Amino acid sequence: MEFKDFLWSLITIYVCARVMGELAARLGQSAVLGELLAGVLVGSSVLGWVEQTETLKLLGEIGVMLLLFEVGLASDLQSFLKVGWSAVAVASIGMVTPFVLGYGLAITLDMTQLQAIFVGATLTATSVAISARVLFDLGKLKTQEGNIILGAAVIDDILGLVALSVIVGLAESGTVSWLEIGRTAGLAILFLVTAIIVGIRYAHLFSHLINRMLTRGRLVVAATTFALVLGYAAELVHIAPLVGAFAAGLVLARTEHQVHIEERIKPVADVFVPIFFVLIGTNVDVSYFNPFASQNWPILLLAGGLTIAAVIGKLAAGLGVVGEKANRWTIGVGMLPRGEVGLIFAAVGLSQEIIAEGEYGAILVVVVLTTLVSPVLLKLAFKRA
Amino acid sequence: MEFKDFLWSLITIYVCARVMGELAARLGQSAVLGELLAGVLVGSSVLGWVEQTETLKLLGEIGVMLLLFEVGLASDLQSFLKVGWSAVAVASIGMVTPFVLGYGLAITLDMTQLQAIFVGATLTATSVAISARVLFDLGKLKTQEGNIILGAAVIDDILGLVALSVIVGLAESGTVSWLEIGRTAGLAILFLVTAIIVGIRYAHLFSHLINRMLTRGRLVVAATTFALVLGYAAELVHIAPLVGAFAAGLVLARTEHQVHIEERIKPVADVFVPIFFVLIGTNVDVSYFNPFASQNWPILLLAGGLTIAAVIGKLAAGLGVVGEKANRWTIGVGMLPRGEVGLIFAAVGLSQEIIAEGEYGAILVVVVLTTLVSPVLLKLAFKRA
Repeated sequence: MEFKDFLWSLITIYVCARVMGELAARLGQSAVLGELLAGVLVGSSVLGWVEQTETLKLLGEIGVMLLLFEVGLASDLQSFLKVGWSAVAVASIGMVTPFVLGYGLAITLDMTQLQAIFVGATLTATSVAISARVLFDLGKLKTQEGNIILGAAVIDDILGLVALSVIVGLAESGTVSWLEIGRTAGLAILFLVTAIIVGIRYAHLFSHLINRMLTRGRLVVAATTFALVLGYAAELVHIAPLVGAFAAGLVLARTEHQVHIEERIKPVADVFVPIFFVLIGTNVDVSYFNPFASQNWPILLLAGGLTIAAVIGKLAAGLGVVGEKANRWTIGVGMLPRGEVGLIFAAVGLSQEIIAEGEYGAILVVVVLTTLVSPVLLKLAFKRA
Repeated sequence: MEFKDFLWSLITIYVCARVMGELAARLGQSAVLGELLAGVLVGSSVLGWVEQTETLKLLGEIGVMLLLFEVGLASDLQSFLKVGWSAVAVASIGMVTPFVLGYGLAITLDMTQLQAIFVGATLTATSVAISARVLFDLGKLKTQEGNIILGAAVIDDILGLVALSVIVGLAESGTVSWLEIGRTAGLAILFLVTAIIVGIRYAHLFSHLINRMLTRGRLVVAATTFALVLGYAAELVHIAPLVGAFAAGLVLARTEHQVHIEERIKPVADVFVPIFFVLIGTNVDVSYFNPFASQNWPILLLAGGLTIAAVIGKLAAGLGVVGEKANRWTIGVGMLPRGEVGLIFAAVGLSQEIIAEGEYGAILVVVVLTTLVSPVLLKLAFKRA
């Protein structure tokens, strides 16, 4: 990629994301909706101004890590632990019901067992990035609902890891090694617990180190590096790097530097984050939504059914709330967006030739709809509650 | 590039740059020296921990643009214009003398006319990034010397454009189209003058636009985008994007938002800038410096001669100061670092088979020595003056 083209892509992303984000804000919506739609617009299926290059994707990944790092920094571990059981219940119900509904629908439509498992599995994962960003934009990060949604989304990521292991196992060898999967899941949980406990225990060393540095940018670079390190470690145990970055934020939230780190990480996040959401948007192929192309009808019908299954399944997750004073609808809505995780599942299915282009297209539509609709619904839900 | 590898490279860069930068600061040196040496260390010729991937290079380019943008933001156009003639004289002498000395040395060593022109030309360009960073680190940006060095470095970039056109013309067709070169140089000057005049005339529109935005990150994203746009425009007229970003900084320095932009652009620059300097360092192949390998002797001898020519040539540039109260030695030292521009010249020569591996290696050594030595000397020069 030429530097000139790279500059041009960045300029396009920033300008379009800003314009659409401002527009969304003026319509009373979260700016992230505008950024996602900006991505749809500049993507290859409409204007074709921004191509998903390797560099942009890597920057987007850093962006979503910084977003979750910032969310972690602004959060309070105690309030997460308090809603722990609710979060586990919400995550579990939010995994099981969409799976069962999706599986059932697929079987009804005469798909094979394996296909049905795939389709069900793609409906299970929540994309924490969208919900976190909307909660942020709405200033609802520290509500009971916000804590349960974020907590459940993190647990969801670990459950998603299990689901992905299962379907990859099924796809590659037709069998599932539960021992192996238990080991994988155990490692992920172990990592998270250790990172947070050890992190908080030794966070003062981090403060101490920063206090002894003389050169410029010590706070922002040290904090960013810490987030990258935990993100890297998360990758090693096969969970999403953004979960590691979130843990890093939770840890640094308990240091004396919390306010200053937040202040300095914000502008850095502002520069990286739009790249992520715009790129998510560029994944959308609007041609699937054209009702005048008759080859789209079966895809749209399947997509419609799956979307209903996906929405009902995640709304049911709100039932998992036990005891806390929290609005169950809001939590269900907060678990709606599927984002990139569903895409990864579907891509595995397509590459292993378990599902065909049509089913793949339908899953894309589900991801798009749940992702675009949840910022709007979440705002509405908080307003009502 | 896998995301995991990318994370690892970033972590390595940040940790090593910080450790070496802190070390340099403790030895009373500019942190940039530490970052450059960190690059040498992690580069392929020593530890091999960081590979120059496309993404890292692109991020480094953004880093050096942000650095110059910040330098522009902290500068005052008036004081540049005041030292304008001195800057022109310094840049011109700093171009002509290294060229004459390098050319003369090459002819003495029985090189061909064309080779001698190439070798001379590679000694001419100043790398504004290193000087700007050192001036920044030392807090000497707003001194008379700082203004002349930066002004001369910008003019140097335009003169360098002329020199590059000449050598590319000679290399490709053996002839030089002065008309074409005049047009190129004219366009570059026209761009700079127009960008600054039009920019300052309409800077209030930028402020107005920002004041009307509702969403987060408006200041930092708008400012960054403005720098990227002027950098892109600079690319279009074939001057370095960092010169465009510098102009963008000069323009925004005259808006009401100057202080706030500076505050928010700093952490972003802190995250990008080390990537640039570490990557510059990774270009160094330390094996050339091994005096026990006898094949290095002719290279080192040639490099020694060229380095002397390069240093004397740029020190002479200090003589260009007319009237102003400024230390001429300091200015000469500030013009010393060659950095990436010399590398581009040498690479053209190598790829066109005008110079051989040996001469190329010698030029690399000159670039390394002038680059590494100037932070140390510049600090010393300011201390003495």
